Amino acid sequence: MTENPFTNSLKSPEIKDVTIKDHFWGKYVDLIRDVVVPYQWGILNDLVDIPVKSHAIKNFKIAAGLEDGEFEGFVFQDSDVAKWLEATSYILEKYPNPDLEKKVDEVIDIIEKAQWKDGYLNTYFTIKEKGKRWTNLEECHELYTAGHMIEAGVAHFKATGKTKLLDIVCKLADHIYSVFGEEEGKIRGYDGHPEIELALVKLYEVTNNSKYLELAKFFIDERGQEPYYFDIEWEKRGKKEHWQGFKKLGREYLQAHKPVREQREAVGHAVRAVYLYSGMADVAYYTKDKELYEVCEVLFDDIRNRKMYITGAIGSSAHGEAFTFEYDLPNAAAYAETCASVGLVFFAHRMNRIKPHRKYYDVVERALYNTIIGAMSQDGKKYFYVNPLEVFPKECEKRFDRHHVKPERQPWFGCACCPPNVARLLASIGKYIYLYNNNEIYVNLYIGSEAEFSINNQKVKIVQNSSYPFNDEVNFKIIADGEVYFTLNLRIPSWCDKFEIKINGELLTGFNLKDGYVSITRGWKSNDRIEIILPTQLKRAYSNPLVRENIGKVAIVKGPVAFCIEEADNGDNLHLVSVDRNSSLELQFDEKLLNGIYVVYAHGYKIWRDDFEDQLYKTDFETRYQPTKVKFIPYFAWGNRGKGEMRVWVYEK
Amino acid sequence: MTENPFTNSLKSPEIKDVTIKDHFWGKYVDLIRDVVVPYQWGILNDLVDIPVKSHAIKNFKIAAGLEDGEFEGFVFQDSDVAKWLEATSYILEKYPNPDLEKKVDEVIDIIEKAQWKDGYLNTYFTIKEKGKRWTNLEECHELYTAGHMIEAGVAHFKATGKTKLLDIVCKLADHIYSVFGEEEGKIRGYDGHPEIELALVKLYEVTNNSKYLELAKFFIDERGQEPYYFDIEWEKRGKKEHWQGFKKLGREYLQAHKPVREQREAVGHAVRAVYLYSGMADVAYYTKDKELYEVCEVLFDDIRNRKMYITGAIGSSAHGEAFTFEYDLPNAAAYAETCASVGLVFFAHRMNRIKPHRKYYDVVERALYNTIIGAMSQDGKKYFYVNPLEVFPKECEKRFDRHHVKPERQPWFGCACCPPNVARLLASIGKYIYLYNNNEIYVNLYIGSEAEFSINNQKVKIVQNSSYPFNDEVNFKIIADGEVYFTLNLRIPSWCDKFEIKINGELLTGFNLKDGYVSITRGWKSNDRIEIILPTQLKRAYSNPLVRENIGKVAIVKGPVAFCIEEADNGDNLHLVSVDRNSSLELQFDEKLLNGIYVVYAHGYKIWRDDFEDQLYKTDFETRYQPTKVKFIPYFAWGNRGKGEMRVWVYEK
Repeated sequence: MTENPFTNSLKSPEIKDVTIKDHFWGKYVDLIRDVVVPYQWGILNDLVDIPVKSHAIKNFKIAAGLEDGEFEGFVFQDSDVAKWLEATSYILEKYPNPDLEKKVDEVIDIIEKAQWKDGYLNTYFTIKEKGKRWTNLEECHELYTAGHMIEAGVAHFKATGKTKLLDIVCKLADHIYSVFGEEEGKIRGYDGHPEIELALVKLYEVTNNSKYLELAKFFIDERGQEPYYFDIEWEKRGKKEHWQGFKKLGREYLQAHKPVREQREAVGHAVRAVYLYSGMADVAYYTKDKELYEVCEVLFDDIRNRKMYITGAIGSSAHGEAFTFEYDLPNAAAYAETCASVGLVFFAHRMNRIKPHRKYYDVVERALYNTIIGAMSQDGKKYFYVNPLEVFPKECEKRFDRHHVKPERQPWFGCACCPPNVARLLASIGKYIYLYNNNEIYVNLYIGSEAEFSINNQKVKIVQNSSYPFNDEVNFKIIADGEVYFTLNLRIPSWCDKFEIKINGELLTGFNLKDGYVSITRGWKSNDRIEIILPTQLKRAYSNPLVRENIGKVAIVKGPVAFCIEEADNGDNLHLVSVDRNSSLELQFDEKLLNGIYVVYAHGYKIWRDDFEDQLYKTDFETRYQPTKVKFIPYFAWGNRGKGEMRVWVYEK
Repeated sequence: MTENPFTNSLKSPEIKDVTIKDHFWGKYVDLIRDVVVPYQWGILNDLVDIPVKSHAIKNFKIAAGLEDGEFEGFVFQDSDVAKWLEATSYILEKYPNPDLEKKVDEVIDIIEKAQWKDGYLNTYFTIKEKGKRWTNLEECHELYTAGHMIEAGVAHFKATGKTKLLDIVCKLADHIYSVFGEEEGKIRGYDGHPEIELALVKLYEVTNNSKYLELAKFFIDERGQEPYYFDIEWEKRGKKEHWQGFKKLGREYLQAHKPVREQREAVGHAVRAVYLYSGMADVAYYTKDKELYEVCEVLFDDIRNRKMYITGAIGSSAHGEAFTFEYDLPNAAAYAETCASVGLVFFAHRMNRIKPHRKYYDVVERALYNTIIGAMSQDGKKYFYVNPLEVFPKECEKRFDRHHVKPERQPWFGCACCPPNVARLLASIGKYIYLYNNNEIYVNLYIGSEAEFSINNQKVKIVQNSSYPFNDEVNFKIIADGEVYFTLNLRIPSWCDKFEIKINGELLTGFNLKDGYVSITRGWKSNDRIEIILPTQLKRAYSNPLVRENIGKVAIVKGPVAFCIEEADNGDNLHLVSVDRNSSLELQFDEKLLNGIYVVYAHGYKIWRDDFEDQLYKTDFETRYQPTKVKFIPYFAWGNRGKGEMRVWVYEK
């Protein structure tokens, strides 16, 4: 790579400037606003009658001196509150709601009281381990928790214009700046769980205070350097572990096995990895650090080409919630944490911001249309933490190496990172549709919406209508005062072999398709109309043969959407089902099923299992197949009909 | 079942009465005698330079007051010595060796000194936990260790006629009898790891003292009764655990979830299960307990028909080294402990002793010809504990859920139950070939040998020559003084579709094939010759379709012998290899390979992996196949050429 990647300086529109009006995504935004935010508020305040209690708000009240009690939950329990504040701020930015805003203000008041005079903020170390601040960065998530609070502060300020939480987190960040750094007397450490890096860049974006960017860069460049900081602090605290056996997880688990600029493979805890890489991409973006950017691209490609499920899920090992090695993508043993897919969206989006290429939003779409929305029940009140591509419920009960897989979504988790992560991402989905600068607008996602931009101080509104990905038509209407000159870049997803673009009814020919974007440069006027036909045909997908588990198997996809078969439709023992390689695939909208979903029918077979009677092995036997109709539903809709088997990768015959 | 199963009263010939003279098994017996017994002697005395030290003899010396030091190893470390003594006694019974016998006597002298005055014998509780005898039966293997010592005592007495060790173990058993039982003041407990039960029956066999049989029956019938003994003792000792987290394993792990007579499924730790069932079968045999026998048959059939690998391995979960559920037989994740297959042989043999049926020795053969001999390296000095049916070495390094799988045999183990178990079984293989009583001789195994029987006080010698299972011919010559009248029962393994029997050159017709045995009743005279043609054709084996992992896969078998493909012969990524469904299978003896083994060639294919270049997924793609010659070697010979991939179940095309 020799060209300069930092020529575009793109940014997202603000959430308030984008109104989602989409037949598909609209209901998710509504769900987050109307159900998820209130539901999670109830959870955080321990008002919901479920076996697992959060205690997260209570921890803040205790730390604030407002209530008595003990700290409960994980060391990073504060981050659940921060992520809820962030998600709720996104909702408030778009849908002002005085009652909700009042709740938020009340929480912020408590947080303010829980903050130390020097800016430190963390309820675990305030209530439970007062003297041990910054003594166990490797395990105790102090900077991670701070990072989430910073993200909340930035979101709250942008949403409401109020500076109270922003001031709190600036004070927190200033405190961190005073504690960490290369200078004599400062700690040359970094967090076991990356997050602070990307958060500090967000704080830099709203405050324009370069010391936050500098601190983010410090954390990134310090990571993995020798002498190894986590060992130094471990020796210092008498080799005490917070989590038993943590040291055994090794340095790769924390992406701290070598300096990040020397890393070439995505390794370790998948969420930590993509949060780190997101921060790296951010720092590369603002510091125009080509070396760091190139490392990020290598890591992104390693994930995309060797370590990502077709559902946009990553991290194939339950042990360490981690990446393993290239092409190691088991279906039933998958970990595939929801948060890891959310973080992958963050990473891909940031890479695309530097230098757009369709590969980034191809990954974003896989994660969004499968794992992320699939992680939440249709009523918004139950969640998957782990997102397997194959479930055989008896394995989950009887095999320890499947105990991490739940065949049904859960109302909450002791470690509840995933549900608020889904909430904050979907509440801010409007930020992901477009990127723009003074010369260009990039369309990354085809989601019905109205978005306002300021191009060279001229207001432009883009009204998008989209039936993607279940149907082919997308159109845009420009609304502007007078003519506005800019390049409109339309992403052509890699799964759309054919496409067609019309400008004001006229077929576009001779266009430029670069890095997967079609660029149309002209002076745009009100009522200019762009129509795209983006056929996401139903297709059979195959894995690279080096993916050991998927030999002889096919997945049905439509664009980014992966389908699956469920026991509810196809009977038990789904491994007996195969799809006829030559059958046509029939797409139907089933309005009665799961509030209306597209389903796919294919001709297929089911192995005749009675031939074996009670025998385990037979020789020189010919398997018999019963013709059958195989019914697929979108992966995101699985597990909404009780406990049962599910498979994305189905045998092909 | 209405007929009385206890009509035969069969027994095995003594080891001294059977001389193995077999082209295949002969070298294993020689290896045990010439290499394994001396090698393991070195290990037990910490004389071998390997990372894992045994310390087992040293523990006895310390307990005997002959040396100073601390106990080292597992609570059941004594059993390694006991199993070595047992194996060595079998060798001595057949191959007298004064030097070796002297070593044995020296060990017995130490053991004698380590025994308490009251008969108690256990170095862990003597050295390390003196006051805690019999307080943790659930976890601490005291009766298990005693059981192995009793087996050693019986074997040593039979081998040498010396009573010293027998006296020691009688004293030990008497002590146990005084401590355990239904009577007031006795402990109504049983061991977490069954073994004492079958050992006590062996002691009953040589001493004819019925209290040992009674005690075995007590342990069996007490197991799983309420109130639950393991909970009682756990409460009593203040809920202290010897192994952290042990209680979480649950009652099924110990086959103590309900009374054994109510058990219908093989569950829990596989070795514990088959040791228990062996003891149950023994007690059923001697007490003519039809109910108990029928439970045993149900459990045996559950294993055979639903929970056994084609290699005769059992226990498909590393967690708990345990059975999981019906048809759950993953190949690469398999645990398949060597000891479990050894125990399965014990169980099957005991069932066959009660009521012969070929299903028992079909299972014995699968275990012997695959897992048991495969668990040992060809030089006798390295062992597998875990015997997977598929290995991808990078998974073993990088996936925690494969960490239990070693792609290469190890010189020893911290928990070293398996190597001496293989030794004691192979050293006593002569006991498994035949069963007999005054009217009948049953031929279970086709192993070249000379065996002497006493039939109604008449001496009969049977000289067997066998080329089974790699070739078809087996013959027997009778040597007797005058005519001896008995029924010769020849087992026809279930994989032999056709067979032919000639008596003195004359084809046998109109014979009776009952429960898989052909019975020939006549007066036999010297030089009577029985020839059998037992064709174990090379065959394609298929799993019951309910075995989820084996859909679309085939295994190549010849009789009981399963073959596998290895990376050394077929290149890497063995999941890309498929066998042509219609190709012929060609058997060749390769005298240069691994000291001479039969190999199988088949026409097959290898998936063309380059078509994907760097992509992870492709749509509407047609896989291309390169024709290739697929080379199989017997499973028992795998892993003798360095670390590499291996597969038993291969895709079929």
